Amino acid sequence: MAILFLSPSDDPAEWLPELRQQISGRDIRVWPDAGDLAEIDYALVWKPPAGVLNRLPNLKVIFSLGAGVDGVLCDPELPDKPLVRMVEPGLTEGMTEYVTLQVLHWHRQMDAYRVQQEKREWRQLSQKLARERRVGVLGLGVLGADAARVLRELRFDVAGWSRSPKELEGIACFHGSAGLAEFLGRTEILVCLLPLTPETTGILNWETLAALPRGACVINAARGGHVDEADLLAELDSGHIAGASLDVFAQEPLDPEHPFWSHPRVIVTPHVASVTHARTSVGHIAAQINRFEAGLPLEDVVDRRRGY
Amino acid sequence: MAILFLSPSDDPAEWLPELRQQISGRDIRVWPDAGDLAEIDYALVWKPPAGVLNRLPNLKVIFSLGAGVDGVLCDPELPDKPLVRMVEPGLTEGMTEYVTLQVLHWHRQMDAYRVQQEKREWRQLSQKLARERRVGVLGLGVLGADAARVLRELRFDVAGWSRSPKELEGIACFHGSAGLAEFLGRTEILVCLLPLTPETTGILNWETLAALPRGACVINAARGGHVDEADLLAELDSGHIAGASLDVFAQEPLDPEHPFWSHPRVIVTPHVASVTHARTSVGHIAAQINRFEAGLPLEDVVDRRRGY
Repeated sequence: MAILFLSPSDDPAEWLPELRQQISGRDIRVWPDAGDLAEIDYALVWKPPAGVLNRLPNLKVIFSLGAGVDGVLCDPELPDKPLVRMVEPGLTEGMTEYVTLQVLHWHRQMDAYRVQQEKREWRQLSQKLARERRVGVLGLGVLGADAARVLRELRFDVAGWSRSPKELEGIACFHGSAGLAEFLGRTEILVCLLPLTPETTGILNWETLAALPRGACVINAARGGHVDEADLLAELDSGHIAGASLDVFAQEPLDPEHPFWSHPRVIVTPHVASVTHARTSVGHIAAQINRFEAGLPLEDVVDRRRGY
Repeated sequence: MAILFLSPSDDPAEWLPELRQQISGRDIRVWPDAGDLAEIDYALVWKPPAGVLNRLPNLKVIFSLGAGVDGVLCDPELPDKPLVRMVEPGLTEGMTEYVTLQVLHWHRQMDAYRVQQEKREWRQLSQKLARERRVGVLGLGVLGADAARVLRELRFDVAGWSRSPKELEGIACFHGSAGLAEFLGRTEILVCLLPLTPETTGILNWETLAALPRGACVINAARGGHVDEADLLAELDSGHIAGASLDVFAQEPLDPEHPFWSHPRVIVTPHVASVTHARTSVGHIAAQINRFEAGLPLEDVVDRRRGY
């Protein structure tokens, strides 16, 4: 009866004390020191090397340490066991902080004020109120819904788009490919919080970016695969897109030669919009293990057909 | 029966159409084209030249176009007529946007990430959640209370300080000189939204800044007179204060030679945190004129003894 911790980017020193405290009576092993693989019944993973999970003969449940599961589902040998996504308050909260910060940055023209400060120029720019600014959130899962809620508290005019129909109080909800054009056409600041699936890969490309009004800004805190980076650069250089905040990239770490680094209207952050915090997320894993062992259905299980 | 519009910084072209639409049957005059001064019964002012208001023999009510009235009260010949402060949703909303943006900026270490971007450095910094970050709002009037509310929605650990006792849901409220030290000692990000009065002039000085924990950040969106600028610079240079967002200054426009412009850990904005918007504020003025003429008491009248 053992738990395997397998992540190339999460620090076991942060996780093990929390795991030992909140999940008692289990041996907790850190890959690659996995011991007898037959003893492992739960795996906590982030981007596991392909084939590893399939070598655990008695595996019962896979827990993703991140909100997105594209880095797990891409394993061609992924065993047919329940995959539980990470839903934890710290992950949601950190993402909402990041999204709110970046929306406010572009809304309040802080890039222009920064340039003025460098020139020691005291000049007041014409400014809309949040209630006059149309923000659009792509993806209305746990992360998108929370970000949309806080943006509403700031009085932004918020719309959302999701694959299937949703209803959120105070948010104009669009869905499906039929609703995408209208959603984009009314969006001045676009926030991408979609899961990465075959349908959403490359969703931000020349066609969708062109559907935004001229001068729109783009915030991507989901996955690099959502953005066609060459298309986004072209739209930034043409001025159709006025600015972008990018936390995720097709290749991470971002290549030192990539033009995003030095683009005057791009904010690059190193995949820090939100991270899973051991202290706020082990409770979710412990609760699901308890449910599973009590014969109750697991919550937040990924639908592999949908991809999230 | 005429209204005088008197402001060196508000654009009459923005105000007059709204005033004419929402306050009918009055002649609206723009200083210095004031016509017969005896015909003026209401004055809408921002930083009026000293003595002008005292030359209006039939003046009934003075309306401040800004939230702060220090620029009106400093007139040594100010007539003893009711002075109504500006309380309008756009002013409050814009201030909350600015405060939230600057708090998130320092909370999320965007200054450090900006430096990393310039160096093309991909490095993830340790990050607290908002719930672990203690924000303190100096001043719990209409502006302070709304900013505190939205910061709570973002889950910051928010405290507030005011001259007299207040109670706000979810906010640890401190008051008076006795409560100031404890408030400062627990504040990692300090937001100043106080009115400028003799008691609050220079309130951010070496003594109060030293009472903040090392590494605290300061946001001043109230008045330049609240800050001893030399003391703040010294605390920034010593590293005790890690960063500052300053929208207001002892002298405005900020002198091109002022060290704030080029300080690596100071954000300078040109007094744009919040402005009165004609479209959202003329209703407040019209409502008060209607109350006054119906014999009802005016609302939001400044207490000259307190200074706000």
